Amino acid sequence: MQGLHLTADVYECQCDLHWLTDAQRLGQACRAAVEAVGLCPVGEVFHTFPATTRGPGGVTATVLLAESHLCVHTWPETRSATLDVYVCNLGADHSACARQLLTALVALLAPTHSQLNELWRGLHPPHTPQSPA
Amino acid sequence: MQGLHLTADVYECQCDLHWLTDAQRLGQACRAAVEAVGLCPVGEVFHTFPATTRGPGGVTATVLLAESHLCVHTWPETRSATLDVYVCNLGADHSACARQLLTALVALLAPTHSQLNELWRGLHPPHTPQSPA
Repeated sequence: MQGLHLTADVYECQCDLHWLTDAQRLGQACRAAVEAVGLCPVGEVFHTFPATTRGPGGVTATVLLAESHLCVHTWPETRSATLDVYVCNLGADHSACARQLLTALVALLAPTHSQLNELWRGLHPPHTPQSPA
Repeated sequence: MQGLHLTADVYECQCDLHWLTDAQRLGQACRAAVEAVGLCPVGEVFHTFPATTRGPGGVTATVLLAESHLCVHTWPETRSATLDVYVCNLGADHSACARQLLTALVALLAPTHSQLNELWRGLHPPHTPQSPA
């Protein structure tokens, strides 16, 4: 289960507004980006939030991967979004694909500012039972 | 979009094996746990991976939330799993609910070891345009 979890929080996105408000369109772009980098989609769910007095609602696009998941949330009222790309490296190292996928989706949203983070997961060493004292 | 993203990587789970192999059962437990802490599910997708020579396949259970998302991946062959609970605090502080939700799901899986992490997201300060030099 050792793997890499990348996050990006992106601000002042300069993309067309529909990428932040149209769940089907963003979701299809997510699935295409997954396939373009060679990861394997196994499920998906896209959701549009209702409009508010501040304008159209945001969206959530999640693509389940054989390697783990991709999830994007958007806030069109502030032209911001958060992205997660998490890949387990069981059987092969998917880290480079994960980085390419995140880069492609951040480029789609065209933010002025981004805050990136990466977390290596599943690194806990095997448990060694201790003898009673 | 300011929010809290909690992760747990859990090892040597002592729970009944079906929590690691039955996507519908784990997914329903995830949805119930979401509702029990007062978060709001808006979508879900549960996936079971095929069995291998090492035994039954793992599962992924994702519940989209009005507040962001919950995602659980399992590896029954090593009795391990990873959990993500991400809540945006737009409108209210959901951090306590997120912690309760993660605690409940980790308790369900009953690991011998856990590795926890938390990441505050969406904290980027507003952009202040600079005057040209």
